[in-house]
Amino acid sequence: MRTIHVIGIGAGDPEQLTLQAVRALRDTDVFFILDKGEVKSDLTGLRRDMLDAHVPEGTYRIVEARDPDRDRSAGGAAYSPAVGDWRSARAGIYARLIAEELGEDETGAFLVWGDPALYDSTLAILEEVLASGTVAFAYDVIPGISSVSSLAARHRTGLNRVARPVQITTGRRLAEGFPDGVDDVVVMLDAHQRFRQYADEDLDIYWGAYLGTPDEILVSGPIGEAAPRIERLRAEARERKGWIMDTYLLRRNPRER
Amino acid sequence: MRTIHVIGIGAGDPEQLTLQAVRALRDTDVFFILDKGEVKSDLTGLRRDMLDAHVPEGTYRIVEARDPDRDRSAGGAAYSPAVGDWRSARAGIYARLIAEELGEDETGAFLVWGDPALYDSTLAILEEVLASGTVAFAYDVIPGISSVSSLAARHRTGLNRVARPVQITTGRRLAEGFPDGVDDVVVMLDAHQRFRQYADEDLDIYWGAYLGTPDEILVSGPIGEAAPRIERLRAEARERKGWIMDTYLLRRNPRER
Repeated sequence: MRTIHVIGIGAGDPEQLTLQAVRALRDTDVFFILDKGEVKSDLTGLRRDMLDAHVPEGTYRIVEARDPDRDRSAGGAAYSPAVGDWRSARAGIYARLIAEELGEDETGAFLVWGDPALYDSTLAILEEVLASGTVAFAYDVIPGISSVSSLAARHRTGLNRVARPVQITTGRRLAEGFPDGVDDVVVMLDAHQRFRQYADEDLDIYWGAYLGTPDEILVSGPIGEAAPRIERLRAEARERKGWIMDTYLLRRNPRER
Repeated sequence: MRTIHVIGIGAGDPEQLTLQAVRALRDTDVFFILDKGEVKSDLTGLRRDMLDAHVPEGTYRIVEARDPDRDRSAGGAAYSPAVGDWRSARAGIYARLIAEELGEDETGAFLVWGDPALYDSTLAILEEVLASGTVAFAYDVIPGISSVSSLAARHRTGLNRVARPVQITTGRRLAEGFPDGVDDVVVMLDAHQRFRQYADEDLDIYWGAYLGTPDEILVSGPIGEAAPRIERLRAEARERKGWIMDTYLLRRNPRER
């Protein structure tokens, strides 16, 4: 039976690998690396460095494939269907990779930045492959340090306040309004700096980019002061590196309910 | 200058330590272990085992102290103040431990189950100690695999669905109603199995106890079927071991909004 590990490899710092993840890396015959194109090649390089550091040379193969392009222009209600189409295209590629590149008794792995449980499609794609009946395999999931945990650690703050909830959401959702019923909100996948629309409110922001890497940038403070600084730093960094991965926590002073 | 590491040590599996956490353990002169009394002594033992496994003997000291009792009878609006009093009592103990047990150039560490950013008071207590001016120190935070990540990994599911938010909250909050604006809710600190009040709704539950340990129990499925099974397994396990740590994800089929 083919086996697949879905391995959370942390938010960028190679030392954020868990011992369990290192063990899974060493147990793997074939690593599947899907490249999102040249702007993300830094990330492919980081994954290769991780393998070099932790897995003896000659004990594994790397199979690279090109990620299908996703229609990022689709907004609003069209967003989820666009993701669905893209996911199915990916499922076709994964099925082929697993069937053709992985021997019947071999173990393959997908390396996922952060934690496979947060805003990552690998698990859903593998379920889609299994449901299609194209190729059979067993799989397990190794949790990783998410960019959310990494952000909180670098700012030395909790995600929630005492006995209060925290919500993790997307930039797209934040654009629709500050979530109901929570005062602590972590925002991921925000290409448009939606926090700016709350710059006049009584909020603190804890922002971080390239968390855990030598390029890490951290900014925190009242949003009115911090937002323009984040905007400037973010634009500069994006220009310099060609890509950016960032996330942030918005914290509102609780009102009486 | 005294230095303190606040180290997330994962949800129970000693292999969930990150390489960064192992490095911090080895860099530590004094481990502060606060014991919550005999029912939690398993957890103290697990921490000692972790040190035995990863840190050379004779390179560190362990300082144990008794955690102050917390008034757990206080409910509703009195809950946060009760936590506040308890936190201040803890701050006094932490200040004394750091001042008396840690040399001026030494490094101390607090080991936190899961991730120090989620429902843990260590960071707030250290800030309170610093604000009191009793003793000066530098500190950093090493993120850990939370029980939330661990739960999702063991159930091989994501925490959020495509482009949708997830909320992390407490049993106490869940008792007040299903959170607004989300269909995926992770519940922590629920001693009263509040999920039972939603047993008639169209929800799936993903529940786990003692995650990552040999005692791990996992149950998932439609809540109407799963809830009685969880209730029984939870009561049996709690009786057998004298304590339980569990968490769960509630997943509602999204309605049109």
